[in-house]
Amino acid sequence: MLNVLTVEETERLIDERVRPLMRTETVPLAKAAGRVLAEALTGTEYVPDFDRSTVDGYAVRAKDTFGCSEALPALLTLSGEILMGEQAPGALSAGCCMAIPTGGAVPEGADAVVMVEHSESYGDGTVGILKPAAPGDNMIYRGDDIRPGQVLLPAGRILSAQDIGTLAAVGRAEVCVAERPRVGILSTGDELVPAQQTPKAGQIRDVNTHLLTALMQAAGAVPTAYGIIKDDEAAIGAALDTAVRENDMVLISGGSSVGVKDATCRLIEARGELLMHGISMKPGKPTILGIISGKPVFGLPGHPAAAYFAARFFAMRALAALLGSERPQATVFARSLEAIGANHGRTQFTAVTLQKTADGYTAAPVRSKSGLITGISAADGFIAIPRDAEGVGPGQTVEVFLFCRLGL
Amino acid sequence: MLNVLTVEETERLIDERVRPLMRTETVPLAKAAGRVLAEALTGTEYVPDFDRSTVDGYAVRAKDTFGCSEALPALLTLSGEILMGEQAPGALSAGCCMAIPTGGAVPEGADAVVMVEHSESYGDGTVGILKPAAPGDNMIYRGDDIRPGQVLLPAGRILSAQDIGTLAAVGRAEVCVAERPRVGILSTGDELVPAQQTPKAGQIRDVNTHLLTALMQAAGAVPTAYGIIKDDEAAIGAALDTAVRENDMVLISGGSSVGVKDATCRLIEARGELLMHGISMKPGKPTILGIISGKPVFGLPGHPAAAYFAARFFAMRALAALLGSERPQATVFARSLEAIGANHGRTQFTAVTLQKTADGYTAAPVRSKSGLITGISAADGFIAIPRDAEGVGPGQTVEVFLFCRLGL
Repeated sequence: MLNVLTVEETERLIDERVRPLMRTETVPLAKAAGRVLAEALTGTEYVPDFDRSTVDGYAVRAKDTFGCSEALPALLTLSGEILMGEQAPGALSAGCCMAIPTGGAVPEGADAVVMVEHSESYGDGTVGILKPAAPGDNMIYRGDDIRPGQVLLPAGRILSAQDIGTLAAVGRAEVCVAERPRVGILSTGDELVPAQQTPKAGQIRDVNTHLLTALMQAAGAVPTAYGIIKDDEAAIGAALDTAVRENDMVLISGGSSVGVKDATCRLIEARGELLMHGISMKPGKPTILGIISGKPVFGLPGHPAAAYFAARFFAMRALAALLGSERPQATVFARSLEAIGANHGRTQFTAVTLQKTADGYTAAPVRSKSGLITGISAADGFIAIPRDAEGVGPGQTVEVFLFCRLGL
Repeated sequence: MLNVLTVEETERLIDERVRPLMRTETVPLAKAAGRVLAEALTGTEYVPDFDRSTVDGYAVRAKDTFGCSEALPALLTLSGEILMGEQAPGALSAGCCMAIPTGGAVPEGADAVVMVEHSESYGDGTVGILKPAAPGDNMIYRGDDIRPGQVLLPAGRILSAQDIGTLAAVGRAEVCVAERPRVGILSTGDELVPAQQTPKAGQIRDVNTHLLTALMQAAGAVPTAYGIIKDDEAAIGAALDTAVRENDMVLISGGSSVGVKDATCRLIEARGELLMHGISMKPGKPTILGIISGKPVFGLPGHPAAAYFAARFFAMRALAALLGSERPQATVFARSLEAIGANHGRTQFTAVTLQKTADGYTAAPVRSKSGLITGISAADGFIAIPRDAEGVGPGQTVEVFLFCRLGL
């Protein structure tokens, strides 16, 4: 007899049972953005591998410029010109300077660069420096960006554009990343018709196939939708067998009614192991988790908003485990504009809209029933009220999980 | 003679000149996630189109249950059973109830549903109700989710998984979205070698091609990289002509040195209109914007972090204009742990790491020179210190733009 688990117990169960199932592959750098790094990236060389100028000007010995001014320039002999992408023509001698472009290699002997704006060329092979330079001025030193042995990116990181830049800087043409898990999506219910069809009396359109497919795709999976399955144990069992065979994880939504929920449990038990039989959360309580052939199988509620929260918290946690990834949750803190009641004993998820003020955010709950998709579509994020909290008071600070729409 | 513009002037210029260039296309719902909606979505029918039960139980007239209790059940005649996906077999008469599953259509005459847990069936065609129901209990009414004329999603919205759910709920098989702009990316510099090559003395690897490609892709564009172009006006001009012909926007990075920057300006002026010749920001000042054949062309700094900020603020704003999209900027407020100095007269972008505390975030600056990619790769976000501010004091609240890595 399985009990209903808390949100935290469910999270621990997923981490324990699903994380060992991760697989990796090697992809070219151009395909790596958004993928999950499966190795820690450590520097193996100096970047840059030479001291660089950050301005157009003259490489100098700083002490040769000490005390100079516009009225009394330091007069230096122009002993060479550094070309972009090439080594300096030689070391810099005392009393000399070399012309250098932004990004050029600072010659041995030089310890600063003077901007061209702070110099004047006399055309006779001498240059006047109008402003003293301190050692290190306008230079990037060898290894300032990356040194051998420096940890650059941890394993599990979801690769951002900046991370791709770091991989390019250390010369990685290929990267070891987590395989994208394949996720099979089944929608069950005699009342469902495909989205493009007009429902007859008593029928509604299948929202969950589209909602869950888009969510899994955004989270780094390769979803496959198996369409609408009638509320028939044999039909659901056959579809489940196909989906388990062809995927790394399966989501079955629907079956909020007691009979169908029990059928889903029986189907999982007959094929593998039923791990969990409900989560103390609202909405989303009738959420089921099992393992078939080493693959996680979720039974999700049929109501779209309930299916969303169950998938957003638990199917996505399983996906993160399959990807071996960090779980970055973008959250903001906000003052609640209203009292929000909560059900004792269940973690309550409430969608909110955010308003930015001069010194922080305010949050207002979206009043909506759990079956409704528009309530979560209109929101900016949601709060999770702990199961032992007595709701939220007006003015109380809450943490809001953002429905972040643009990954940068 | 063009002046250096402020950040705000540059933003206005981009909005004015680039937004009219947007184009749209129609895509199937399955391909619409993450795209930018080009039409306002308005409800055309009721969703659901009938009153639905949210539980397994019995449809009743609420007043028939008033005053009942476990000790004194209300005895009702079971006059029918509602099947999923079908119309009720008839109207509910006084003193009667009908069995109904979760999601079933509530019959005419009924105004509440009693959970099966609060009933007992006597097996003789009568059912005992153990707890009084109020009108509306355990029901979703016709149109609770969507009503005709209701504005569901505004034009310009980046479609989230929840929005895809809303589109499915109203039966949209196709959606009108903005075309993904094609963005050509050129990297210039005699010092650059491809990322997979080992640099010789004075050379560095081309980071910007990879950084900008990944950034533009994450922002909804279709990037094409044209590789490394030598610092030669004719060579850059030829590559620019090709890139303008094959794309909707072009980014040329490199050319931080005065000569090359001037060359980029000359190339744009010879082919179209130079709009801007530097932005008062740090890093990123040597940023150029022109229009060639009606297409925006950006000259970006060569240093990766400077190129990143210029692209993140201005190339992405131009992309949002081409997409006709909202510009959701996920920001959090945080207390700065340190003083951060700022340059008067230029908007200063400083990368920061965030730490979550019980009642909010703290931010610490990443000390890094502008040429370095690792400084922005290691950060959680950045702050923009206005050009007229005297830096940030310790303990001061700052708004942090998040490097959000997962779009959900």
